[in-house]
Amino acid sequence: MFLVNTNHTLTQINWQSYRNDVKAINTMINDASGPGGDFLGWRDYPKTYDKKEFAKIKRWANYVRTNFEVLVVAGIGGSYLGARAAIEAINGLRNNDSIEIIFMGQTLSPNYIYQTLEYLKNKKFAVNVISKSGTTTETSISFRLLKQMLEEKLGKEEASKAIFATTDAKNGLLRELANKEKYVTFNLPANIGGRFSVLTAVGLFPLACADIDISKLMEGAYDAMKEYDNGDIMTNQCYQYAVIRDHFYRTGKKVEMFVTYEPQFRELGEWLKQLFGESEGKEELGLLPDSAVFSTDLHSLGQFIQEGSKILFETIIYPRIPNNDVEIPKDDEDLDGLNYIAGKKLSFVNEKAFLGTLEAHTADGKVPNIIIEMDEMNAYNLGHLFYFFMRACAMSAYLLHINPFNQPGVEIYKKNMFHLLGKKGY
Amino acid sequence: MFLVNTNHTLTQINWQSYRNDVKAINTMINDASGPGGDFLGWRDYPKTYDKKEFAKIKRWANYVRTNFEVLVVAGIGGSYLGARAAIEAINGLRNNDSIEIIFMGQTLSPNYIYQTLEYLKNKKFAVNVISKSGTTTETSISFRLLKQMLEEKLGKEEASKAIFATTDAKNGLLRELANKEKYVTFNLPANIGGRFSVLTAVGLFPLACADIDISKLMEGAYDAMKEYDNGDIMTNQCYQYAVIRDHFYRTGKKVEMFVTYEPQFRELGEWLKQLFGESEGKEELGLLPDSAVFSTDLHSLGQFIQEGSKILFETIIYPRIPNNDVEIPKDDEDLDGLNYIAGKKLSFVNEKAFLGTLEAHTADGKVPNIIIEMDEMNAYNLGHLFYFFMRACAMSAYLLHINPFNQPGVEIYKKNMFHLLGKKGY
Repeated sequence: MFLVNTNHTLTQINWQSYRNDVKAINTMINDASGPGGDFLGWRDYPKTYDKKEFAKIKRWANYVRTNFEVLVVAGIGGSYLGARAAIEAINGLRNNDSIEIIFMGQTLSPNYIYQTLEYLKNKKFAVNVISKSGTTTETSISFRLLKQMLEEKLGKEEASKAIFATTDAKNGLLRELANKEKYVTFNLPANIGGRFSVLTAVGLFPLACADIDISKLMEGAYDAMKEYDNGDIMTNQCYQYAVIRDHFYRTGKKVEMFVTYEPQFRELGEWLKQLFGESEGKEELGLLPDSAVFSTDLHSLGQFIQEGSKILFETIIYPRIPNNDVEIPKDDEDLDGLNYIAGKKLSFVNEKAFLGTLEAHTADGKVPNIIIEMDEMNAYNLGHLFYFFMRACAMSAYLLHINPFNQPGVEIYKKNMFHLLGKKGY
Repeated sequence: MFLVNTNHTLTQINWQSYRNDVKAINTMINDASGPGGDFLGWRDYPKTYDKKEFAKIKRWANYVRTNFEVLVVAGIGGSYLGARAAIEAINGLRNNDSIEIIFMGQTLSPNYIYQTLEYLKNKKFAVNVISKSGTTTETSISFRLLKQMLEEKLGKEEASKAIFATTDAKNGLLRELANKEKYVTFNLPANIGGRFSVLTAVGLFPLACADIDISKLMEGAYDAMKEYDNGDIMTNQCYQYAVIRDHFYRTGKKVEMFVTYEPQFRELGEWLKQLFGESEGKEELGLLPDSAVFSTDLHSLGQFIQEGSKILFETIIYPRIPNNDVEIPKDDEDLDGLNYIAGKKLSFVNEKAFLGTLEAHTADGKVPNIIIEMDEMNAYNLGHLFYFFMRACAMSAYLLHINPFNQPGVEIYKKNMFHLLGKKGY
């Protein structure tokens, strides 16, 4: 993986002026001496993770794959986005090789929950409920509904064998409930926040159920951990990315748009929006994270990016090698005028759309682009990418003098909601 | 449908200062005397649309529903987003009552196209190809692949009975091809641009295939057309919305975030992003349109909205009555602590999340909110809503002295791409 300079981005930046800050912040990350230092469990996790639990995750995932048609993952925020992003990024949007993974617990929508319950009525499904505390309203409600449905279908004992809980090792309502009902459980480390948890059991169990090679994922993250573990801005590409986005922010950009050319990376954009938005969006600071899927969205947002308000820059995530490919067939009559690319692969055309857009946006549109390229989107490279962004995010927030690891603003709507719902104490 | 004032938004605005402009622009819209006046076909379309073709659409949709398992809609931009937004908004994300509608032609992704073709191999599917000119690369490539697949499966003659083309009445490659192959065709009016075309055959045929009542849709649009057809800013809520967003833009907001509380309205957000982004994003002006689905995204973007950079305002689309509902069951042990809302409906809880968030964002977060409420999301109200936004969009762009109906910036990446692909003349 590497960053590519476009539009002379890299040469515009005064790297020397960042040298000392980056070095000091890297030390702060490594010795956990900065704000939020208690939540740096993710930093060495690709090395320190519990190998015994890892084996247990694989074993139970195998059990789920063998015995069920559907896994329902019940979680929200960091207990939802990482797993969904990874499963779609690797397996695509219409994969028939693994069991089906669907998501609940991420919404209060009566329509979504009604239709999902209807859909599950005649399926053999297991549930993975994910919540550190067990008090998240969205997830608890969905889980109560799913639990009752399973118990009605299978009886209490069999139902408890179809439920897997990912939660705090010792504390919280979900831990108590899981112990009492004798669910198989996986631990959510206390020193890792939701948006940094994709490489823990939170992501690993659903991914393993989706037949994704989680060992390769952790290997990729491990190699990234080693690669980005130094404070030298001249060589550390992860921190170079953090500095470039800091530079754009300080020179007037308001929005970072994460762009891909694959519909199956759409949810990766959502994961990135949480990671950066929730880490940096404090004290009336921070870039608004946004996302788009090209070339689809060139036919909707393309006009704005090209010629509208100059408030954004783009960060492109581009695997050079597609997981699948299709050749454009010849047509004897050529009524659609496409024979000039007959015999070419779709990946070839998609790449030309990428390169043509890059030129259009950077040269004509004066919209700076950062490109993060890799060979292909497999488990190894995705593990690398997840780690790359988490570490870059920590550096970015600290460059703004912001604690990357808290989210005080998320509680306000909850308090208001609990008050309106008549919950005791609110 | 009506707008609700929150956070004293409406009283902050100097309505008198907009009075003359709004009146003049409304006249300009009604007599088509402004820039882009040739593309105002959508304005009276709910009244002037071709009733004979409308009946033909219904007839063939019935044929498709009876004879096929899947309809593949092949289009991009305005030939994709409106139909997808409407079908999901009305039918939801897991609907089993209509035939399946899937989309192709909106991407060059080899992964997406490979998996979709694999998925279709054993399905009985029809195709609706939508393109004004027939030269849109994404759509043409997908259509060539789908056409060859059908012809291999069914033979040329039977295949031609499974293909429906929506295109210009007289001109263009797709019109020629459709005439030659004797496809059933529907007309894309020459004086309606892509992002204003959802109420034409572009949207109507897929919607009718999805068993949505397109007569009710047109009725809703017709009533909206009558309601918003006057230049009085003091009574016309559609123009009030346009003026409020203009006010926010001129007083420093950079982003309009369209928010819903239903996952099945996510694509409605995408339709809105094209409508406003492509209409206003010119001459380095315009609000960046963004979208979010709450409460899901309160656990990702919520922190930024609450406490991050003060660059955005929110426009909430909120139907008060859900299409389906679910009661939260009682649990004797109450291990999850939810019994305080047992017996309540999910719609009740979702509404409290909405009201709690409204208070959190507007009062604590100083983020202005505009609310567009309706009773329920049905075909009639959706028709109304589509028209409301299209008319508001025309007013908005003209308030910025921008032609709402062209999109010159979209061509630049295409030219570069064609050059790189070696297309003749580029």
